[in-house]
Amino acid sequence: MSLFDAVRGPEDLARLSVGELSTLAGEMRTELIDTITKTGGHLGSGLGVLELTLALHHLYDFRHDRIVFDVGHQCYPHKMLTGRRERMNTMRMDDGLCGFPHPNESEFDQFHTGHAGTSISLALGLALADKRAGNNRRTVAIVGDASYGAGVAFEAMNHASDLGVDLLVILNDNEMSISPTVGALSRYFTRLRTGPLYTGAKREMQELIKHLPFIGEKVDKTIDETVGVLRSVMVPGHMFEEYGFTYFGPMEGHDMPRLVHTLSDLQERGGLNFLHLLTKKGAGCELAADDPQKLHGVKPKPAVSTTDGEAQPPEGAPAPKLPAYTQVFADKFIELCKSDESLIGVTAAMPDGTGLVQLQKQLPDRVVDVGICEQHAVALGGGLAKGGSRPVMAIYSTFLQRGYDQVFQELCIQDANCVLALDRAGLVDDGCTHHGLFDIAYLRTFPNTVLMAPANADELRAMLAFAVEYPAVVSVRYPRDSAEPSTRPLQPIELGKAEVLREGSDVVLAAYGTMVPLAEAAALELAEQGVDATVINMRFAKPVDTATLAPRLEGSRLLVTLEEHSVAGGVGSAICEALSDEGHCLPPTLMIGVPDRFVEHGTRKRLLEKLGFTPAGLAERILEGMESRVGGALSG
Amino acid sequence: MSLFDAVRGPEDLARLSVGELSTLAGEMRTELIDTITKTGGHLGSGLGVLELTLALHHLYDFRHDRIVFDVGHQCYPHKMLTGRRERMNTMRMDDGLCGFPHPNESEFDQFHTGHAGTSISLALGLALADKRAGNNRRTVAIVGDASYGAGVAFEAMNHASDLGVDLLVILNDNEMSISPTVGALSRYFTRLRTGPLYTGAKREMQELIKHLPFIGEKVDKTIDETVGVLRSVMVPGHMFEEYGFTYFGPMEGHDMPRLVHTLSDLQERGGLNFLHLLTKKGAGCELAADDPQKLHGVKPKPAVSTTDGEAQPPEGAPAPKLPAYTQVFADKFIELCKSDESLIGVTAAMPDGTGLVQLQKQLPDRVVDVGICEQHAVALGGGLAKGGSRPVMAIYSTFLQRGYDQVFQELCIQDANCVLALDRAGLVDDGCTHHGLFDIAYLRTFPNTVLMAPANADELRAMLAFAVEYPAVVSVRYPRDSAEPSTRPLQPIELGKAEVLREGSDVVLAAYGTMVPLAEAAALELAEQGVDATVINMRFAKPVDTATLAPRLEGSRLLVTLEEHSVAGGVGSAICEALSDEGHCLPPTLMIGVPDRFVEHGTRKRLLEKLGFTPAGLAERILEGMESRVGGALSG
Repeated sequence: MSLFDAVRGPEDLARLSVGELSTLAGEMRTELIDTITKTGGHLGSGLGVLELTLALHHLYDFRHDRIVFDVGHQCYPHKMLTGRRERMNTMRMDDGLCGFPHPNESEFDQFHTGHAGTSISLALGLALADKRAGNNRRTVAIVGDASYGAGVAFEAMNHASDLGVDLLVILNDNEMSISPTVGALSRYFTRLRTGPLYTGAKREMQELIKHLPFIGEKVDKTIDETVGVLRSVMVPGHMFEEYGFTYFGPMEGHDMPRLVHTLSDLQERGGLNFLHLLTKKGAGCELAADDPQKLHGVKPKPAVSTTDGEAQPPEGAPAPKLPAYTQVFADKFIELCKSDESLIGVTAAMPDGTGLVQLQKQLPDRVVDVGICEQHAVALGGGLAKGGSRPVMAIYSTFLQRGYDQVFQELCIQDANCVLALDRAGLVDDGCTHHGLFDIAYLRTFPNTVLMAPANADELRAMLAFAVEYPAVVSVRYPRDSAEPSTRPLQPIELGKAEVLREGSDVVLAAYGTMVPLAEAAALELAEQGVDATVINMRFAKPVDTATLAPRLEGSRLLVTLEEHSVAGGVGSAICEALSDEGHCLPPTLMIGVPDRFVEHGTRKRLLEKLGFTPAGLAERILEGMESRVGGALSG
Repeated sequence: MSLFDAVRGPEDLARLSVGELSTLAGEMRTELIDTITKTGGHLGSGLGVLELTLALHHLYDFRHDRIVFDVGHQCYPHKMLTGRRERMNTMRMDDGLCGFPHPNESEFDQFHTGHAGTSISLALGLALADKRAGNNRRTVAIVGDASYGAGVAFEAMNHASDLGVDLLVILNDNEMSISPTVGALSRYFTRLRTGPLYTGAKREMQELIKHLPFIGEKVDKTIDETVGVLRSVMVPGHMFEEYGFTYFGPMEGHDMPRLVHTLSDLQERGGLNFLHLLTKKGAGCELAADDPQKLHGVKPKPAVSTTDGEAQPPEGAPAPKLPAYTQVFADKFIELCKSDESLIGVTAAMPDGTGLVQLQKQLPDRVVDVGICEQHAVALGGGLAKGGSRPVMAIYSTFLQRGYDQVFQELCIQDANCVLALDRAGLVDDGCTHHGLFDIAYLRTFPNTVLMAPANADELRAMLAFAVEYPAVVSVRYPRDSAEPSTRPLQPIELGKAEVLREGSDVVLAAYGTMVPLAEAAALELAEQGVDATVINMRFAKPVDTATLAPRLEGSRLLVTLEEHSVAGGVGSAICEALSDEGHCLPPTLMIGVPDRFVEHGTRKRLLEKLGFTPAGLAERILEGMESRVGGALSG
């Protein structure tokens, strides 16, 4: 029996010696690599905090105390230790474990997260609530160096000292976020890493200095100044100290004895403490550590050796034949950039995920990567647009929420000429924190916006070419999926012009983006049932093509709107608003989209099925809709 | 003729001597106080940067170079100098000058802003676009100390050094944002202000140190360390230097000769420069300087002496008799806090504007002010809710956009029990950057949300009491307006339950929040025209009360939805979605709300009139709607 087999829960860790913890770390590392290279998932991040996770569970009781992981993709070792070891092989699978912390899975998970930078705010909130309620708990937030660059993390650090609570923030500095970290902070971290105190030998000296008074009002300026100088030399983290945190580090994050020793000391300290750990993303997994960007998210593969961490697709999965929408976007954007000097790509730490990395390689000065800072990415775009450049901000649908107010003020109010390329619009594998299901609602409510979605690869190319020319805040949404070529000659893209794919007499299917091919397939199913459907590829959610829609609705028994988006505020509503605005009466309407609940993780294919987004599923709902919604008069 | 009268445009300033600039500052100050105490507006901020504005226009040519004001409320002197002096007495009036920079008014205004913290991003964008286009322009961003605490400002500072552009950031440290500044940065600024270098006498020494090499990889660690120490002592702004900016200051911001001298030096420097100015909000205006919070936004008064800056309501305006919605919220929330220990108010630098200042005075530990950090405010609320507190986040509708992603992840995904008290929902005087016209659309698309709006003061009280009990992310939106008491006995608030105010046979008016009394009045007008209207106070935008609506729609000729919100994604759409979802057929529908364009500034009353939100205006539109939308069949 392995040591890990003897650990029934995190409470057993308290009894282990430091040596045993190291042994356990080794066992867990092997098991984690073995499992995740099969299932896929965020492997490198978990490996980077494996020793830290063990040390924390060894020292703290997180049934009572609180741990908050930033983003959360580094929580795999935490999951293995908190009752989910046996289910690690279901990672991110349908009905399996979520790739992020999730309170539904365990009492040890406080929040279900996935977007970066909020752990310090959340932990401060917990600590303040506990202080108010008189709960004597300790609170730990673990934040990566890239997440630490998000504005909200800065806001929380800046505010923390006002609250009078105890909090330990652990900076997991792995020298490598998803992409190479950008910004001045990353260089500051590097200076700290290479600074003279890295050995940690002068810790006692630091402690001494820390206990000297600092900027007390009554203290003589000269002493004050001297202490400040000493502090700056001896305590490398003065930038954190300015926020009222006591800085410890930088310290090697895979050295179990030192980790336990230091964390044990910190456990006794009140107030705000900041521990700067140096970890290696993918530590212990050759491939993950050597190419952390590649192994940030591992794609599942069937048979794999645990030594190289090479990922394989799951058994039975067909080899990918079609390019992804991301690739189609990347290729077309490179082509456009080569003929239009004004174009410039902006990414918020996702050059790989958005495909901009390919442009970056060919034309390095045509891509700006701002780090995990969607607010700044969008506002910078507003400045670029005003200055005569045409920015194309390639941001996942869900992450653009972080830059929402900048879309409002820095783009829409300025009537900026720019493009929002919304990758991952619709359902993704990662779960509710990552699905892009709200962008139509949150964007179309702003004036000066144009919203588009392609039904296939050729449309994406044409839409992108249209978008970079059209003077407005133009968004194009596309899924994380393969992109079929168009099955018919491509009609030119015109503002607010839909495309009629099939003329029918009974129902009108108004489909958007990914739902277009499904609507066509559903129409064939309906035809077999004797229902003759018109199929319209809406192309634009704003403006809506009422001229194409309205005449086809006359005499139709049902209008069906289809979108891979929340029904609330989506294309269905946009169509109803537009028809109503022009004085048309609305026919009986069935709005098909994602219902008003959060959709959990799972393969995109399975999630689409579950939501009934299949030809048969859609045909069935449409037939039901035709029966229940009888024309003209109101019926319940 | 005054000196000011001789200045025809900013280009004339280049020829003035420093002494003349000082004289001009005096003349402008008198005129500005005289004008704004009559018209109302942001007086103190402009007075604080009067000398700075003059010095900049003296040295730069902003037809060619670029100036970006953060927020923008400090731009009044800039407006006076750039062709708008004669219109200053129309400040924020209908068809008058906007209280913020506005490109429609002047080529000297690059952006129309009003939300804080984005000036550095915007300026970087301009500078990068100019660099790419080969335009040899200089770019200046002016940011207040409170705005500097917004996360997006940090993101921009952190990223700036990656871009290789020239930029001068001027920190307008006026020791007083709208409310006392919070957070560690404000204490850092204080330390700089009171530091030994405030005299500026050691500037040459600083310069020398600045030119020493810093952390070059080949440089010996000891030299490195020594330089670091010297820098920390001699250069007080090391926190800004970490971001790659060269720090200058702190420096008195009302000393014209020194300002001109320093800015002139800075003008010649390339790269990233940061000038820390100490200014006095309301400088030169006794009342504004002594009570800057009171005079941050001056309410207009008719006759006023320029010496005390006391504000008076405009002639003919009735004395306020009714409490504002803000006051009703404040009073009720204090009452609720006294009986429920779990409640805690959270504000993002708006304790006054949201009314939380009153709770703060009575129960100081029941209010958390995080500064201009809506992201952190909301995420902190998520932590508080998880910890068992019940946060009530009082944030203006428009500013909540800044915390949108945190509403998504930190509140809705966690299914947090909390309240979003959305003040300033609807039209306000300040213009399109401040109207709260999108919150229904952007909030209702998220699961786990409940959306409410009161029709009167009594409803707000009851809704707030409901909201703090109901387990969901509950938002209550209310306008910046006086709150009428209810004219009838208050029906209890039940989740998703509307209130029928009038039963009619011809049309159904489904009104939300502020539109309810207008709908009732419009129904009376309609009755005179022989049209019998049902009037429903929807109370909830989510969930929608279809049970009340549906039977009343049967036989009605028209459904009219009314809301003080963008039609796109608003209550009208929510109603259509809900009816459609339950299998009801939609009757002819007229959605009345704010159309798809940005609404400029003006008095709220006048803006409502302009949009036709009057009993007569609504009755007219409804009659038109009944004629054009003939039941059942689709017509164009």
